[in-house]
Amino acid sequence: MAKVSIVMGSDSDMPVMAQAADVLKKFGVEFEMTVISAHREPDIFFDYAKTAEARGVKVIIAGAGKAAHLPGMCAALFSMPVIGIPMKTSDLGGVDSLYSIVQMPSGVPVATVAINGGTNAGILAVKILAVGEEVLLGKLKEFSENLKNEVVQKAEKLDQIGYEEYLSQMKK
Amino acid sequence: MAKVSIVMGSDSDMPVMAQAADVLKKFGVEFEMTVISAHREPDIFFDYAKTAEARGVKVIIAGAGKAAHLPGMCAALFSMPVIGIPMKTSDLGGVDSLYSIVQMPSGVPVATVAINGGTNAGILAVKILAVGEEVLLGKLKEFSENLKNEVVQKAEKLDQIGYEEYLSQMKK
Amino acid sequence: MAKVSIVMGSDSDMPVMAQAADVLKKFGVEFEMTVISAHREPDIFFDYAKTAEARGVKVIIAGAGKAAHLPGMCAALFSMPVIGIPMKTSDLGGVDSLYSIVQMPSGVPVATVAINGGTNAGILAVKILAVGEEVLLGKLKEFSENLKNEVVQKAEKLDQIGYEEYLSQMKK
Amino acid sequence: MAKVSIVMGSDSDMPVMAQAADVLKKFGVEFEMTVISAHREPDIFFDYAKTAEARGVKVIIAGAGKAAHLPGMCAALFSMPVIGIPMKTSDLGGVDSLYSIVQMPSGVPVATVAINGGTNAGILAVKILAVGEEVLLGKLKEFSENLKNEVVQKAEKLDQIGYEEYLSQMKK
Amino acid sequence: MAKVSIVMGSDSDMPVMAQAADVLKKFGVEFEMTVISAHREPDIFFDYAKTAEARGVKVIIAGAGKAAHLPGMCAALFSMPVIGIPMKTSDLGGVDSLYSIVQMPSGVPVATVAINGGTNAGILAVKILAVGEEVLLGKLKEFSENLKNEVVQKAEKLDQIGYEEYLSQMKK
Amino acid sequence: MAKVSIVMGSDSDMPVMAQAADVLKKFGVEFEMTVISAHREPDIFFDYAKTAEARGVKVIIAGAGKAAHLPGMCAALFSMPVIGIPMKTSDLGGVDSLYSIVQMPSGVPVATVAINGGTNAGILAVKILAVGEEVLLGKLKEFSENLKNEVVQKAEKLDQIGYEEYLSQMKK
Amino acid sequence: MAKVSIVMGSDSDMPVMAQAADVLKKFGVEFEMTVISAHREPDIFFDYAKTAEARGVKVIIAGAGKAAHLPGMCAALFSMPVIGIPMKTSDLGGVDSLYSIVQMPSGVPVATVAINGGTNAGILAVKILAVGEEVLLGKLKEFSENLKNEVVQKAEKLDQIGYEEYLSQMKK
Amino acid sequence: MAKVSIVMGSDSDMPVMAQAADVLKKFGVEFEMTVISAHREPDIFFDYAKTAEARGVKVIIAGAGKAAHLPGMCAALFSMPVIGIPMKTSDLGGVDSLYSIVQMPSGVPVATVAINGGTNAGILAVKILAVGEEVLLGKLKEFSENLKNEVVQKAEKLDQIGYEEYLSQMKK
Repeated sequence: MAKVSIVMGSDSDMPVMAQAADVLKKFGVEFEMTVISAHREPDIFFDYAKTAEARGVKVIIAGAGKAAHLPGMCAALFSMPVIGIPMKTSDLGGVDSLYSIVQMPSGVPVATVAINGGTNAGILAVKILAVGEEVLLGKLKEFSENLKNEVVQKAEKLDQIGYEEYLSQMKK
Repeated sequence: MAKVSIVMGSDSDMPVMAQAADVLKKFGVEFEMTVISAHREPDIFFDYAKTAEARGVKVIIAGAGKAAHLPGMCAALFSMPVIGIPMKTSDLGGVDSLYSIVQMPSGVPVATVAINGGTNAGILAVKILAVGEEVLLGKLKEFSENLKNEVVQKAEKLDQIGYEEYLSQMKK
Repeated sequence: MAKVSIVMGSDSDMPVMAQAADVLKKFGVEFEMTVISAHREPDIFFDYAKTAEARGVKVIIAGAGKAAHLPGMCAALFSMPVIGIPMKTSDLGGVDSLYSIVQMPSGVPVATVAINGGTNAGILAVKILAVGEEVLLGKLKEFSENLKNEVVQKAEKLDQIGYEEYLSQMKK
Repeated sequence: MAKVSIVMGSDSDMPVMAQAADVLKKFGVEFEMTVISAHREPDIFFDYAKTAEARGVKVIIAGAGKAAHLPGMCAALFSMPVIGIPMKTSDLGGVDSLYSIVQMPSGVPVATVAINGGTNAGILAVKILAVGEEVLLGKLKEFSENLKNEVVQKAEKLDQIGYEEYLSQMKK
Repeated sequence: MAKVSIVMGSDSDMPVMAQAADVLKKFGVEFEMTVISAHREPDIFFDYAKTAEARGVKVIIAGAGKAAHLPGMCAALFSMPVIGIPMKTSDLGGVDSLYSIVQMPSGVPVATVAINGGTNAGILAVKILAVGEEVLLGKLKEFSENLKNEVVQKAEKLDQIGYEEYLSQMKK
Repeated sequence: MAKVSIVMGSDSDMPVMAQAADVLKKFGVEFEMTVISAHREPDIFFDYAKTAEARGVKVIIAGAGKAAHLPGMCAALFSMPVIGIPMKTSDLGGVDSLYSIVQMPSGVPVATVAINGGTNAGILAVKILAVGEEVLLGKLKEFSENLKNEVVQKAEKLDQIGYEEYLSQMKK
Repeated sequence: MAKVSIVMGSDSDMPVMAQAADVLKKFGVEFEMTVISAHREPDIFFDYAKTAEARGVKVIIAGAGKAAHLPGMCAALFSMPVIGIPMKTSDLGGVDSLYSIVQMPSGVPVATVAINGGTNAGILAVKILAVGEEVLLGKLKEFSENLKNEVVQKAEKLDQIGYEEYLSQMKK
Repeated sequence: MAKVSIVMGSDSDMPVMAQAADVLKKFGVEFEMTVISAHREPDIFFDYAKTAEARGVKVIIAGAGKAAHLPGMCAALFSMPVIGIPMKTSDLGGVDSLYSIVQMPSGVPVATVAINGGTNAGILAVKILAVGEEVLLGKLKEFSENLKNEVVQKAEKLDQIGYEEYLSQMKK
């Protein structure tokens, strides 16, 4: 049974939303994923959001761009946390998406991550679930350890080959 | 029967929304007016927006601030024009409201007016109705005439008393 | 006789303005379309805007970029609705166009749509005409139904093939 | 034992942070609250953030303004969710705080709420805890019901007294 | 005969426009001054702008706020320089006015000064006239000398009384 | 003897500055053109700016990007008009250049044109000189006539071939 | 002999610049302080900046607002560090000042601090001098210790009296 | 022994950070350089920053993007100057990085340079060291002389070949 529901307003958001899905997969968290539009199919959307709890969903990850209403409307209809991902836009860089998601009025919060922050949305969902699941908390600590090791390895490589060589390898 | 429906997400928007109502009153256009929240009472809102057409509503004027979803959600549920008024906000000046209203995705337009543009929203509603009502078109031309006359009178006053006197009278 | 007039300040705006024309065509709404500049040919522009009503025009769709004055000047000279499309600009992303169109002073509204929102401008024009034409209202509902179906089909496809396959097909 | 820890970089943030505390109190969620600065007392801060889990903390709510690093540094040291509140600033309105909190790099998310969104931060913390606590979920539904009722009552009042009277009562 | 014409879209711009007038007065440059609106009285405006040259006007100073079209429309109709003053706005600080004035399309420049820069608009007009008038050029050099002396005097005062005393005198 | 001096802070600004030169050439206005940096060679710059008047220069056109000080420093040292061109920048789009040029303090105006507005800077210089030169005024009117004709021809072409054909020809 | 020179473009910047002076005084660093304008008295300014090194100045702290050129021009003429303070502005909040100071072209850096960051400019000057003066380094560590203690005391007070009492005391 | 430490939050910042290293190399200033993340390896980072002084480091140059905390956290832990380089970001252009670095709270300054200003960060570090090292001061003056000569040569080239030829050579 899916604990996390990943929704996007348009399938053009898929590359970013897939990052969230990849994280959940890696952590072994079951999820459902769909394209759904609060603007283009409000009835379907309403039904979806109101039945999410009954389906066992604990966290919704919603991504949308421009005048992004999907995350906020999810938060209006679902009682547990909604994570919002503002999509980068070609004209305003995503500031429009960001403001439309993060500046929610009092009473209806959306947990907003960075513009195009699909990976972070996935991690945040795991962190939320980890509040009640020891196993996930352990995996998160491992994950942090891996993040650390990646940086350490880069630092070591830089130390060994020097910045000029490092840079020239990056350009290849 | 109300031809225009004026809705606002919070009663703190009333001073701006009342400007729209004042215009409709002056033009003799019947309207209904309510406080309704897509976020805080989605069911009531949905019902309201879907029955608007049956109630005889031809234009919705929706005002909202911050992550302003009310106008866009109206446009998702109502087939005729929705006019959006972005509210000025104390932190971002209303840019957040503006982007949340004007940057609607393809398929679901909101006719957006200036930040805090209550009067212009009212006039735009009358212009829309005037497409099919000769009487309103006539009144709009009169209205424009009056706008012109006000400016002409100011120009004449300035001509007569000079800018220094004009300025000192403004400061009183 | 054209009911909608589509005007643009420069023919570089054509790709966006053509979207509006495409919508009107699909809905069977007669329209005229021209390149006209309030800045470069003010006399021609004035004559055009003042005679629009007599030509039978009910709605003007005006697109312009940067210090975009065309929509606002149309609204000063034409009594029925003017829809403004802010063009994306290469330096400021279109914020300049947006502010120049949406922030109209009290008395002279422009119904502003999203940056580069040609399609939405077309739909908004149809929505305005639909206030008085049952047939168009019916077509709009069909149109919405189609929008819904497109999303539903994408959701079904995602359901069937999974997000990884969906994503890889997008990249092709 | 405190389940939520509320921290702020400066006691000037207290009015906003107190809103979060008020929410937790209302929902009966135990919390701790302190003034702590990642910049001015990094050692104390590090110790605090690293021992939070052992103290039983499940969610950190961190508020900070300007170049706001407190929420992000909490997220670097604490494995469960960190909620960030960007403070309004007198010069940039809080855009600086918002960007400094929401634009976290991949791997270390902060669940960001609106500028000065103390109440929403509190509600989001409750929503997170409600994933594992039936009782809180019930209270959240009640809370939403109350939000709805408040709007309904305003709408009824407006209906009864009309917008002009409503407006004049607001001004008193 | 007026060499400079000062125009404003609304008499609320008078305090800023009066600064320009004050400068012209001080330099002994004859000017005319009026309130005129390209939006609210386009015919009067057109006539005004097209006859300015015949009236002997060499420079137009035009101030306007929000979607500020007045300076640009002057530039479309008048062959000599137009100076634009963007008015500060209560919501966007004047960025809207600035973009609407400075971002003019190729072929129709407006010489834009700072937001609320009435004094500088006046000085720029004098500088333009000084290209052909030796006397004005001499006065401009005197004016610069005076600007310099004011700063020198402040520096001397600071030197004498110290910054703490200087500051406490400012606060009185 | 050069009447206009075109200066740029870096030769990377050449493509934009060349537009100004092209305009002056077309109008038969003599100009000098150089690369000069207020930051990198302040002595040379000072000498240049202070002797400009003696060399016969009547107008300076200065282009610069980022923290663009060149136009403002020219205005501090030269008594006649200085036209500033803000360069588009790769990170901030040119907003930094624009603010650094247009927001000059009281007493020292820079006549600012659009971001990358080389052509308009050239035209503005001609407009300034035309205040005292009948011949240039005549040429400016011809120039405007040509601008108008170009638009008229595009409108005629659109009328003849229709927007779909027009668009497909643009894409070739 | 003054090691630090504090300069401001206008005496309206004094309240912010005095913060820098207060810091230097507290640390026992000798400083000079003056009002000087690169725009209004370029000769005096040039002479001042070029002789600073000979006067023994090691660091310049320059504050300016709007199109703020003073810090950058100091950096062009003085070989050691220049610290720039962007002044808050009434229209743009200080973004104009910030961009005009921080976005310096390659070769001529200005060490920029926060908008209105007078205190931090003073501290940064001390940090720079502390590179070569053991005594100042010691004092900086003491200063940091004091910053820490202030926060600790606030945290203790909050612990003792609770947030509601803390808040009510703040409001007094 | 390294006098300057160059740190970056991610190796994707290397191309910009290498510019700083290149400058230090040219000036003969010893430096260390590493990839280190305050977010991903807070313990390693803390240890690094706290021991920098003991290692002989006098200046830290820290580059980071988005919610850029690395420079500010360095400044919290290191008593001598920290120079911050805001990285350009693909969505917001680097405004997020800039605000996160420059808007530091009172007490903990970061000497901020332009977005992607790697070269300027290197020069600023040399300027800081030059306060106490005559040799470096001499080299800085030579460096400035070279900057000047480069501009002079470009100006001479432009003088010789004319702007049209200059431009066509640039395009090759």
